[in-house]
Amino acid sequence: MTVRPVLSSATRKLTHDVDVMDERGRSSIIAIPAEQPLTIYVDKRELVTLMTLGGAPEALTLGYLRNQRLIRDIEDIVSVQVDWDVDAAVVVTRGGLGEVAERVARQTVTSGSGAEGSVFTDLMEEVDTISLPADARLKQSTLQTIIEKVRTHRSIYKQAGSLHGCALFSSEGELIYFAEDVGRHNAVDAIAGKMWFDGVPGGDKIFYTTGRLTSEMVMKGAQMGIPFLLSRSGATQMGHMLAERLNMSLFARCSGPHFLLLSGTERFIFDVETSKNVS
Amino acid sequence: MTVRPVLSSATRKLTHDVDVMDERGRSSIIAIPAEQPLTIYVDKRELVTLMTLGGAPEALTLGYLRNQRLIRDIEDIVSVQVDWDVDAAVVVTRGGLGEVAERVARQTVTSGSGAEGSVFTDLMEEVDTISLPADARLKQSTLQTIIEKVRTHRSIYKQAGSLHGCALFSSEGELIYFAEDVGRHNAVDAIAGKMWFDGVPGGDKIFYTTGRLTSEMVMKGAQMGIPFLLSRSGATQMGHMLAERLNMSLFARCSGPHFLLLSGTERFIFDVETSKNVS
Repeated sequence: MTVRPVLSSATRKLTHDVDVMDERGRSSIIAIPAEQPLTIYVDKRELVTLMTLGGAPEALTLGYLRNQRLIRDIEDIVSVQVDWDVDAAVVVTRGGLGEVAERVARQTVTSGSGAEGSVFTDLMEEVDTISLPADARLKQSTLQTIIEKVRTHRSIYKQAGSLHGCALFSSEGELIYFAEDVGRHNAVDAIAGKMWFDGVPGGDKIFYTTGRLTSEMVMKGAQMGIPFLLSRSGATQMGHMLAERLNMSLFARCSGPHFLLLSGTERFIFDVETSKNVS
Repeated sequence: MTVRPVLSSATRKLTHDVDVMDERGRSSIIAIPAEQPLTIYVDKRELVTLMTLGGAPEALTLGYLRNQRLIRDIEDIVSVQVDWDVDAAVVVTRGGLGEVAERVARQTVTSGSGAEGSVFTDLMEEVDTISLPADARLKQSTLQTIIEKVRTHRSIYKQAGSLHGCALFSSEGELIYFAEDVGRHNAVDAIAGKMWFDGVPGGDKIFYTTGRLTSEMVMKGAQMGIPFLLSRSGATQMGHMLAERLNMSLFARCSGPHFLLLSGTERFIFDVETSKNVS
């Protein structure tokens, strides 16, 4: 039986009201997303400060540790305690980050703070070690269900805008997790953290993001073992190249019944009649 | 007289054609943005790998060095030579990064690789040292001109999507620079690099970005000394808070005649008749 870390359930206000003036000089109050620094401490050592909406700080912390490959096994984490009074996530581990993880931490940060490719250098070496399930299939009808569920999901974005969202779906199109954050990497990391904590495998899942399908997004999906990546946005060359190499099925421009499938076409099953197919 | 670095003029293809399949099973070819790793070497030492569109690699390199506060004076840079055959930007300096810069480099990367707030910790300390000109003014008619110029500007985005763009305008609404990249931070850094190289001050300029007005974007604008920040997107709480503290004029949701002014209202001059004002 997996021994899971003890997590706090820290909450905070996710929107913030501000006075604005429009083009006719009219004043009004609008809601904008909260954005808070969250400093992660591992065994009393400061690791990193993330800017976050703050909707799922414990999951974000877990996902960050996992996706940066700082801790390999969830059982090595005793607890994650978030305290918004001091903007801190305090992580206690069983054995510390260890020498290897410290080296990895240093490599990761060196390879691109503030850049799209912050985990690029590390992960390129890992691409060829990742194997996504060849037998996973996604039906067009399920894809349409997922796109519709994302469209109608209650979100802070709908209140306040300026957020990236992502979601994990089952192969039947059931929503498993939804996360939003000011940075799309944080939103992905929060989903990864939830999957890690709950022991949810990625091999039969579908991942949706509002963000673009860049190299980093494809690699994060691959790290989670997910063969299907959907976005309402487009893809970049490196995202496409990596998806082809990983044999990941990449769907760009998902909107209503529309999509563009860029790679991994053999996993897709057309089961919606063409006549119904285009709005 | 300022001695400016010698720059290469490296070029590469900025779009990439891929085969896609749509919801009716139809194949076609679409253009997506290029995305290339660019590794910056300073005095033969590897510094960072950025993922970039590749449209302005020399300016991106300069802007990265400046915005990360690794080099304070443009005269300290002898040359920047980009070679796409090896995806490298080779920087030669007069005196090296120096001990202080090395410490800064380490701090910066430690404070948040892959996160929105990668330069947050450093810059919070600098906010109160930055003073934006109180007497700069922006007319509503100029704002409208700028929004229209951005809308009609020739861009890779219009061909291939999936890019962030930003632009620098004069107080008369003349376009000075335009930059696009896969990451919005890179696009800003490229503009900063051009300003640095050309010795263009920010105090009377207007900065436009397609990206959201987050803490990091506001801070990058402040570092460039620019009092006016425009976006077609929204703002986050920290972006708004910092803009208020810096007394920067922040315009969100710029579209046609519309905008929402969130801070620094005293710098704005309503000079467009209300009747013409709303489409």
